[in-house]
Amino acid sequence: MTIDNVKKLPFDEARVREIMRDYPTPFYLYDERGIRQNARRLNAAFGWCDGFKEYFAVKATPNPYILKIAKEEGFGADCSSLPELELAARVGITGENIMFTSNDTPSAEYRRAKELGAIINLDDITHLRYVEEHAGGLPELICFRYNPGPLRRGNAIIGHPEEAKYGLTRPQLFEAYASSGKKGSKRFGLHTMVASNELNPEFFIETARMLFDLAVELAEKLGVRLDFVNLGGGIGIPYWPDEKPLNLEALGQAVKELYDERIRPAGLHPLRVYMENGRCITGPYGFLVTRAIHEKHTYKDYVGVDACMANLMRPGMYYQEGKRSGYHHITVLGKEHAPADTKVDVVGSLCENNDKFAIDRMLPKVEIGDILVIHDGGAHGHSMGFQYNGKLRCAELLLREDGKVQQIRRAETMDDYFATLDFSKL
Amino acid sequence: MTIDNVKKLPFDEARVREIMRDYPTPFYLYDERGIRQNARRLNAAFGWCDGFKEYFAVKATPNPYILKIAKEEGFGADCSSLPELELAARVGITGENIMFTSNDTPSAEYRRAKELGAIINLDDITHLRYVEEHAGGLPELICFRYNPGPLRRGNAIIGHPEEAKYGLTRPQLFEAYASSGKKGSKRFGLHTMVASNELNPEFFIETARMLFDLAVELAEKLGVRLDFVNLGGGIGIPYWPDEKPLNLEALGQAVKELYDERIRPAGLHPLRVYMENGRCITGPYGFLVTRAIHEKHTYKDYVGVDACMANLMRPGMYYQEGKRSGYHHITVLGKEHAPADTKVDVVGSLCENNDKFAIDRMLPKVEIGDILVIHDGGAHGHSMGFQYNGKLRCAELLLREDGKVQQIRRAETMDDYFATLDFSKL
Repeated sequence: MTIDNVKKLPFDEARVREIMRDYPTPFYLYDERGIRQNARRLNAAFGWCDGFKEYFAVKATPNPYILKIAKEEGFGADCSSLPELELAARVGITGENIMFTSNDTPSAEYRRAKELGAIINLDDITHLRYVEEHAGGLPELICFRYNPGPLRRGNAIIGHPEEAKYGLTRPQLFEAYASSGKKGSKRFGLHTMVASNELNPEFFIETARMLFDLAVELAEKLGVRLDFVNLGGGIGIPYWPDEKPLNLEALGQAVKELYDERIRPAGLHPLRVYMENGRCITGPYGFLVTRAIHEKHTYKDYVGVDACMANLMRPGMYYQEGKRSGYHHITVLGKEHAPADTKVDVVGSLCENNDKFAIDRMLPKVEIGDILVIHDGGAHGHSMGFQYNGKLRCAELLLREDGKVQQIRRAETMDDYFATLDFSKL
Repeated sequence: MTIDNVKKLPFDEARVREIMRDYPTPFYLYDERGIRQNARRLNAAFGWCDGFKEYFAVKATPNPYILKIAKEEGFGADCSSLPELELAARVGITGENIMFTSNDTPSAEYRRAKELGAIINLDDITHLRYVEEHAGGLPELICFRYNPGPLRRGNAIIGHPEEAKYGLTRPQLFEAYASSGKKGSKRFGLHTMVASNELNPEFFIETARMLFDLAVELAEKLGVRLDFVNLGGGIGIPYWPDEKPLNLEALGQAVKELYDERIRPAGLHPLRVYMENGRCITGPYGFLVTRAIHEKHTYKDYVGVDACMANLMRPGMYYQEGKRSGYHHITVLGKEHAPADTKVDVVGSLCENNDKFAIDRMLPKVEIGDILVIHDGGAHGHSMGFQYNGKLRCAELLLREDGKVQQIRRAETMDDYFATLDFSKL
């Protein structure tokens, strides 16, 4: 089995060359079928829970056509800024289908979230008063983000919870529920987020245990009965071919066992369970398609492509952390079964030396004109792009279940790049 | 002397509060006087050289009003993408006042650079043929980027030259001059760039020595007489209050001595000397002005401001590398002389834990409503910003020499954020 059997593609070279007749490279290509099948797996894994809901983390892929698919699969939207709220609203995701999980929040964003009827998830105890004063009072349903601090170990990416800017401490959490209850809130939620891109299910099981125990404790000590617990997001994806995806079904079952063990006996059933994943929902189903335009042989061998880090920041941004970070698998179309016997750096044209999609990567011999597919760009890919060095962000295309391709975001033009400039006063 | 006497501001709290009546925070404020005085210092430091020219690295601050100031001070523009070429052209910087230093270059960019009469600086030997085939032949004036590889040590930021994707090896360089001469190019330049944000003048003196020696060798061995050597950019700025700026006058003198020692005796005078700095030209003269909107006390103490890493990426992006990296000094307006006796993290609202302008920073006690000025954002500040998480990039304002303020880039709106989306097919 070669590596490329592990990272299968929902298209082949011929199809991509057809698409390139209408849309020049580079572009993102999202696989609707993959996204839907995966969404259904997640929903099924938590099917035991009456009222399970995934709030898709909009920042991962803030495209209305992707959000619409998410909505059709029963997902809500996890938003944390005004534009993300508006995007959700334009797709018809409103009310408690929006989780507004922000931090250091400006008052205008709270007001808009309230208008939309979103679930407001407060990041700090001082925001109780802030929402009261600046957003016309507390909503009926209020949620708090818990930061367990030294009581809990974070994962490699999110770091120690006590170093995180997010959330309330344990004493603040109890104070917040007591106080918001007095101030008129009638329904309550509890949220935490202690992992990012994590493939070990234990992190999420441990999170469920922590939140279920808190739910019981809040009922016992304060008489606060939670509507829901939000386990946060952070389920990772196997960027490396030798990594295995997290088993969603096993995770769902493990959370069910904890629920049966802790929530039911405490008389707290039904308690809804929410998540707010982004990466694992769309990540593996988005591909950055780019064409080799140069080869270069100096102290190393290089393949130059027509995409650059403006299109996908992860490899360049996380390279500093070590060679396991920021990896994105690359397939050379039409050479899926050729031996990967040349070692190259795959680079873009940005005037930064970290603009490299791969370093010392073994690939089949790449010729100019070959199409390279960079995997796992479906989340935190296009959305993290910048325009540094005058680079323009590329189009996003959706490969529909019927095999047709729809452009769901056009490529930027120079007019976009100059849009905030007024040359007339020069 | 307190720290804030070291990092002086060209405005005070009262002036900023006036500006805030017209322009809400956050915004960048650039100091025209500072930029001009600094530009004149650089030109004077190399005044001994007939034909010295600084090509301002457009990617540092790609704003036409800033470029116009650069032009008025006699600078050219160092461009490396089509939008940067267009920006220079719109400001009236054309012909050999543009240095087109790109890599992995698409053919359309070479064509446009040729149309504008820009100096074309080739990054690789294969680009000779590429320009011939795709851009209508080699230009009369051609420049090559030299990568000394293991013959030269890079600085901490740029790393080992042999790991850099840029430039030609030494044998390739000789081949390139010989070959382009045969193909009709008549005038030649030589470029290298082995440092970024470097405060040690020795790096630049060593670069001048290397390029002068090459100029002599090229004349002797190939009979190629260079028009210019481009020492590249990379002069750093003192982000930390305890750092000293590089002494431009001393650098200019040291390069003059090398010139007199190597170029004149070889009969190669006049040889023009170029540089392409960005950071040291505008960096210290751009300030990100932001307002404290929240304070938070959990496991640490936080000040939340209305700017975020979308406005200034360096602290969040380079934090991983260690605490000396990504530092930006912060002044609390009106408290310049108050004791810096509270330790805080200064954070933005982006849903990323690295969205922190400062970690464990000693500042005067910050109250909500206080104005914080983040220093040294005049280069690679606004230009590196992204829209991740639905964050919008802020306005840029220019504090004119006459004390007036001119908006030189408006803040983004949600319409900008949605500009590449077509909601009608949803």
